[in-house]
Amino acid sequence: MVTEDEAMRRAVALAARGLGTTSPNPVVGCILLGPAGDVVGEGFHAYAGGPHAEIVALAQAGERARGGTCVVTLEPCNHTGRTGPCSEALINAGVRRVVIAVDDPTPVAAGGAATLRAAGIDVVTGVRRAAAEAGNIAWLTAVRRGRPYVTWKFAATLDGRSAAADGTSQWISAAESRADVHVLRSTVDAIVAGVGTVVADDPQLTVRDLRDGTLAIKQPLRVVVDSSGRTPVNARVRDAAAPTWIVTAADAGAGPDGRVDLAAMLIALFARGVRNVLLEGGPTLAGGFLAAGLIDRVVGYVAPKLLGDGRAALMGAGIGTIADAVELDFTDITQIGGDLRFTATLRPKES
Amino acid sequence: MVTEDEAMRRAVALAARGLGTTSPNPVVGCILLGPAGDVVGEGFHAYAGGPHAEIVALAQAGERARGGTCVVTLEPCNHTGRTGPCSEALINAGVRRVVIAVDDPTPVAAGGAATLRAAGIDVVTGVRRAAAEAGNIAWLTAVRRGRPYVTWKFAATLDGRSAAADGTSQWISAAESRADVHVLRSTVDAIVAGVGTVVADDPQLTVRDLRDGTLAIKQPLRVVVDSSGRTPVNARVRDAAAPTWIVTAADAGAGPDGRVDLAAMLIALFARGVRNVLLEGGPTLAGGFLAAGLIDRVVGYVAPKLLGDGRAALMGAGIGTIADAVELDFTDITQIGGDLRFTATLRPKES
Repeated sequence: MVTEDEAMRRAVALAARGLGTTSPNPVVGCILLGPAGDVVGEGFHAYAGGPHAEIVALAQAGERARGGTCVVTLEPCNHTGRTGPCSEALINAGVRRVVIAVDDPTPVAAGGAATLRAAGIDVVTGVRRAAAEAGNIAWLTAVRRGRPYVTWKFAATLDGRSAAADGTSQWISAAESRADVHVLRSTVDAIVAGVGTVVADDPQLTVRDLRDGTLAIKQPLRVVVDSSGRTPVNARVRDAAAPTWIVTAADAGAGPDGRVDLAAMLIALFARGVRNVLLEGGPTLAGGFLAAGLIDRVVGYVAPKLLGDGRAALMGAGIGTIADAVELDFTDITQIGGDLRFTATLRPKES
Repeated sequence: MVTEDEAMRRAVALAARGLGTTSPNPVVGCILLGPAGDVVGEGFHAYAGGPHAEIVALAQAGERARGGTCVVTLEPCNHTGRTGPCSEALINAGVRRVVIAVDDPTPVAAGGAATLRAAGIDVVTGVRRAAAEAGNIAWLTAVRRGRPYVTWKFAATLDGRSAAADGTSQWISAAESRADVHVLRSTVDAIVAGVGTVVADDPQLTVRDLRDGTLAIKQPLRVVVDSSGRTPVNARVRDAAAPTWIVTAADAGAGPDGRVDLAAMLIALFARGVRNVLLEGGPTLAGGFLAAGLIDRVVGYVAPKLLGDGRAALMGAGIGTIADAVELDFTDITQIGGDLRFTATLRPKES
């Protein structure tokens, strides 16, 4: 016997297991309760093109779903895409009640709740909405805005330096932080870096197990912002480990300064199915994203070190005075190895 | 009935109530247990020249101390200074057992444990030593090194800026953080700032209640590092609210660069009874302290803001490459208002 609220808590946790592999779809988790309130099926959406969470749970439950309750983090879809509509599957399975956390904001998939109600099914929405929204924040923000959700990640010392005076930066952060970055990368669809970083550090920008170097099966798209096309031919980012897009101003369109128009680049990424982007620097590219209002979240790895000189983590955001500082809210502060990791989201601008 | 371990925990907490008013003496807390193990007296050293913690506790206990146990954070003194030796007072009171956390490292006051043992009293040392050392870290470090313990405090944005491009910095941090700085100031003997900060911001450098501006009764010494004597005549730091020392190179001695010799200045402060110093900037002065190996602890108030331009929190520490970064350990991370406050101590250099 599980309450609907507890079932939703579990569904939100299940949904998170799809992070990084479902785009352009959202992450979704589903728990099916039998008529007596016991769990008879569970599922999550694991990858685009694969079965939706409700279908996985229904297949597990079989006849036990009849007369039961479907607890699902997102409104069941109403359309036939690569799979049939979930609303119809739930009706056919004889489910009596559907409990939803978040309404589907996409015009093509929405309408599931109305279809269910029209079939005489009891539908409740808004259960644990905040938790489910937070779990799907990248996809929800992306589809509402028509551009991917952007997380800027950086590593710095206590005094905000991301490299020493001589340009050295390996390793500012602890091994545990570097491993954590690979976990973060595994949850996104694309990793963006500037050509300056590619030329200076020659990063591979892949998801790896740092103990043995093994590549993860699913790799995010590597995106190099390279206005004038100077990424070296033998750069590691061009290797076969993952797909790569070298974005030139000719490709994506140029801003007034002749450099890649970052907003246009993000819209192009959205059109390619990218919903969740990790921006990994350098400082000038991060400044460009911030100046254009294109950063949603910041994850900082702060090492307990002092340099007093060297490159700042962020440059050229076009902010001249303290009153114009971009404001955020801390959502998480954790110690990782000897480092401190903070997560902060940008405060919506007052209009 | 209180265990000796629990009594020591309370004694350490009591000791902390003296922080900021006991220099050049340490903070000390004392709990007296009667023969049955019940608390019969407690005390802490509240101000230099005032009674020691043991004397306060003995006065409270009276005859109930006879046959009991004295639990004290620092070895009882053996000398007659402004007050008589505590070792003698404990013997005269008929205490049977003395439990000590930390031995007294000063040659003039040490020897109390030996005197007590010679009088047939059972003496134990090292109980909760780490906690008691941490509570007295400034004084212990100062007397061991012959110079005050130095805490560098700064406020910055997530990207390490302590001012915007136009020099504005009020207010980077939240009201709660600014109030917390006044609590921090109330625990030290001197506040040090550079003349650059005095000229730019005209701070008063006092301990105040920020709600109504009321000055605390006890004010730390204000110290302005001002190599060439250019502190304005009407600077607020010269007002009557607290004592002030404007330190010129002529005063304290000059380094090879003609500027104030910071190590010599600290030794002079130690000679004046200062054991605990709060360094409040600016970035170049902090860099000078760091380069000279004179910073023991860092307290940073990090506001969830981004600037991308403006003055760094730390400059000119003479560190050129990442391998030479100064390493610290986080000892505390707390959210204050919307800000993050970290405390980190410098890792001892490998020799």
